[in-house]
Amino acid sequence: MAKGITKRSENYSQWYNDIVIKAGLAENSAVRGCMVIKPYGYAIWEKMQAALDTMFKETGHENAYFPLFIPKSFFAKEAKHVEGFAKECAVVTHYRLRTTADGKGIEVDPDAKLEEELIVRPTSETIIWNTYKGWIQSHRDLPILINQWANVVRWEMRTRLFLRTAEFLWQEGHTAHATEQEAIAETKQMINVYANFAENWMAVPVIKGSKSESERFAGAIDTQAIEALMQDGKALQAGTSHFLGQNFAKAFDVKFADKDGNLSHVWATSWGVSTRLMGALVMAHSDDNGLVLPPKLAPYQVVIVPIYNNMEQLDQMTEKANEIMAILRKNNISVKYDGRDAFRPGHKFAEYELKGVPIRIAIGPRDLEQGNIEIARRDTLEKKVYPQTEMLEVIKNLLDEIQINIYQKALKFRNENTFKTDSYEEFKKILDTTGGFILAHWDGTTETEEKIKEETKATIRCIPFDSPLEEGKCMVTGKPSIRRVLFARSY
Amino acid sequence: MAKGITKRSENYSQWYNDIVIKAGLAENSAVRGCMVIKPYGYAIWEKMQAALDTMFKETGHENAYFPLFIPKSFFAKEAKHVEGFAKECAVVTHYRLRTTADGKGIEVDPDAKLEEELIVRPTSETIIWNTYKGWIQSHRDLPILINQWANVVRWEMRTRLFLRTAEFLWQEGHTAHATEQEAIAETKQMINVYANFAENWMAVPVIKGSKSESERFAGAIDTQAIEALMQDGKALQAGTSHFLGQNFAKAFDVKFADKDGNLSHVWATSWGVSTRLMGALVMAHSDDNGLVLPPKLAPYQVVIVPIYNNMEQLDQMTEKANEIMAILRKNNISVKYDGRDAFRPGHKFAEYELKGVPIRIAIGPRDLEQGNIEIARRDTLEKKVYPQTEMLEVIKNLLDEIQINIYQKALKFRNENTFKTDSYEEFKKILDTTGGFILAHWDGTTETEEKIKEETKATIRCIPFDSPLEEGKCMVTGKPSIRRVLFARSY
Repeated sequence: MAKGITKRSENYSQWYNDIVIKAGLAENSAVRGCMVIKPYGYAIWEKMQAALDTMFKETGHENAYFPLFIPKSFFAKEAKHVEGFAKECAVVTHYRLRTTADGKGIEVDPDAKLEEELIVRPTSETIIWNTYKGWIQSHRDLPILINQWANVVRWEMRTRLFLRTAEFLWQEGHTAHATEQEAIAETKQMINVYANFAENWMAVPVIKGSKSESERFAGAIDTQAIEALMQDGKALQAGTSHFLGQNFAKAFDVKFADKDGNLSHVWATSWGVSTRLMGALVMAHSDDNGLVLPPKLAPYQVVIVPIYNNMEQLDQMTEKANEIMAILRKNNISVKYDGRDAFRPGHKFAEYELKGVPIRIAIGPRDLEQGNIEIARRDTLEKKVYPQTEMLEVIKNLLDEIQINIYQKALKFRNENTFKTDSYEEFKKILDTTGGFILAHWDGTTETEEKIKEETKATIRCIPFDSPLEEGKCMVTGKPSIRRVLFARSY
Repeated sequence: MAKGITKRSENYSQWYNDIVIKAGLAENSAVRGCMVIKPYGYAIWEKMQAALDTMFKETGHENAYFPLFIPKSFFAKEAKHVEGFAKECAVVTHYRLRTTADGKGIEVDPDAKLEEELIVRPTSETIIWNTYKGWIQSHRDLPILINQWANVVRWEMRTRLFLRTAEFLWQEGHTAHATEQEAIAETKQMINVYANFAENWMAVPVIKGSKSESERFAGAIDTQAIEALMQDGKALQAGTSHFLGQNFAKAFDVKFADKDGNLSHVWATSWGVSTRLMGALVMAHSDDNGLVLPPKLAPYQVVIVPIYNNMEQLDQMTEKANEIMAILRKNNISVKYDGRDAFRPGHKFAEYELKGVPIRIAIGPRDLEQGNIEIARRDTLEKKVYPQTEMLEVIKNLLDEIQINIYQKALKFRNENTFKTDSYEEFKKILDTTGGFILAHWDGTTETEEKIKEETKATIRCIPFDSPLEEGKCMVTGKPSIRRVLFARSY
């Protein structure tokens, strides 16, 4: 490709990386595993944040902010949590540097050692539940429905832009409830919010379900997830919502008095999505020409490129573009005009294809004369000439159509790549050829799950909520199973 | 006070702390020097962010995100910068914990020591200029106009909620330019944006000016600041904009080729405001009843409290409140209804005064019957009964009036507490009695500045842009001076 993007069919992983870099979404930084999110990538993340934040507020949540650092001892309070998180993390041990003896450099000042080391938060359950202890005495203090937008750090050894980075941005909801039912309902509500966002904003179809025990969040009773299928046939976990039971309330001794003054431990949930969604967005829709963005998340939905032979014509096109932009903006359609004289139209076309801008308008002298306008859509690469009078209607319809079309395309791909099998041999064959989601019977044991993972690298993505009760036999052990679960290799 | 707020006149510092805590803005956390920003406080911060972010975008800036961690060696590259920042900071030395030998606790794994320590960013010039090196080759890559919303850490020994905390939230703009003039113009533009925000959103009058050499940002050629006067006569620096010259471009070897291919170092600015603004907001307007919020930054501008004797009446008031809310929301006025039956109206009145809600509506059975409504304003505590038909107009006008009134009140206070003196004795007397801003002549030397600071604890807040040229003599040394500078004790 002229744009320097590796073909998807040749090397999927390199294709992904090329798009992230060349479309200006993100790049690696000088700090191992930490990325720089560039303006175009960050603008998409801001759109995601805005949509999610609105949904969180509509479901009664408020934002707050808790400390970046967590005292080491807090992790030790919830046994499973420390297993899952405290091991691979950034540890702050000192609070001062000093000039070296030769006066030329700087070094850690050994006199400035912290009494207790601080962990850079990998997730905030512990510091938040330690805080909630001070906020909750009575049933009247409940529920607490709080979300936090923050950065977190998990010391990953093998990192990939957006998909797995040492530092990433995310939101984490942490709620406290008087009853088990209420906490379970909250867990479900939030996985539904995530599914709604994935499908209707990102245009990525997802399967909702519960994780198997071994894939649960460290400290959760039930972890619910949305799972999406990428174009290489691998699954990507796009969001999780955890029912935490009373585990954190017990670890941090958080009790409330009910109306009769009886004390009980509080029930909890937590839920989060991260900049990993950016990776899902890229992988779900892009092609060999670059990104394909859903109109609802595109930093600008329309780009206007002038075609001209001299500066006088450029001025005419600019004038026309200003008219068009005024009309579109009045209709809440975001638009950018690229009047740079240093680049030719063909170069600009390729650039905006690479950046996945949903609609491109080109206007040249002949169009102007004839009252026409050329409109191209990124998803199908089709272009067509319309009378200028129809411009607004055409663009409005196209934006809706593109949003739906790329969802339908992804759904079709997923349907074509979701298989049912009762044979472990066939299961392996599918994984080694097309990949995809596989619905199969499993005996419910961690041993079998581990064996499958070891032999095939596939894991149970979830036990889908909509998986019907069905008598069957585990494809590996032949033991009885009551429903199929969803397997795949995954990111 | 019934609300448990210390009187401002009795103990200003305790009064401030009481308001921050009791109004539910923030509290100290289990981590030394780190605060928890509670939902009501965070909602104000979100309003600040939204207004500032719009202003940044309107002046051509884009958001991006850079790593939390900075390699230690980066700090050593800019000599003054390391002096100013790298000394008191959080240092990450390890990336793993392990279970202790007795299996009961966790400890830092000595095998997981980083080759080079990472500093939790106290500010991001170094990591960003190291990144810009890869982005800038030609004049066509300039300007770069980027802002980042982020958390930063400075290991402060004495902390106070919002005003000085180890971790705080802020935005930091980092721009790169081809010419010195352009960078200077950007520095000025952003200090003007900050002044506009402080005065027209926060309702806090500010004085714009340049810092003296000793108060400059570590690595800047010129630091411009906005300075506000708090109700105890102390100054608070509310925002800074730095012209960095070519210092960081030289430290990180960032050059660009002009049209003729000649290489030059890039010119830079950086500028920031932080959650410290929350402290300024509280200190500038609050009184012994609690917070006083400017309508433009209030999480909800109007609160409705029902007055009733039985549940039937409550239902009637709720119905009326829903009508009122629909009208207000249609007019983009944010409103909350407090129909909690567990609390009496008097309790609610006190709570919303404490929280600084600009307007309170009370409706009771008699009002309903007579077609009236009681409207109280927080700034003056006046309440008045109006016909319900006038409600919308009254509230619209009141919101404007309150925004202007609290600004005028703060301006009047500042004017009454800004003094001119040519006598060092009087200077000291002012500081020890009323406090306030003092315009005085200074000989321009760091020695004199230091002497004044040592003897009076007052510092040069800035050399105001609008300070007229005026022949004078330094109040301390008698040496010639060409303009007055602004002194105060400060936060």
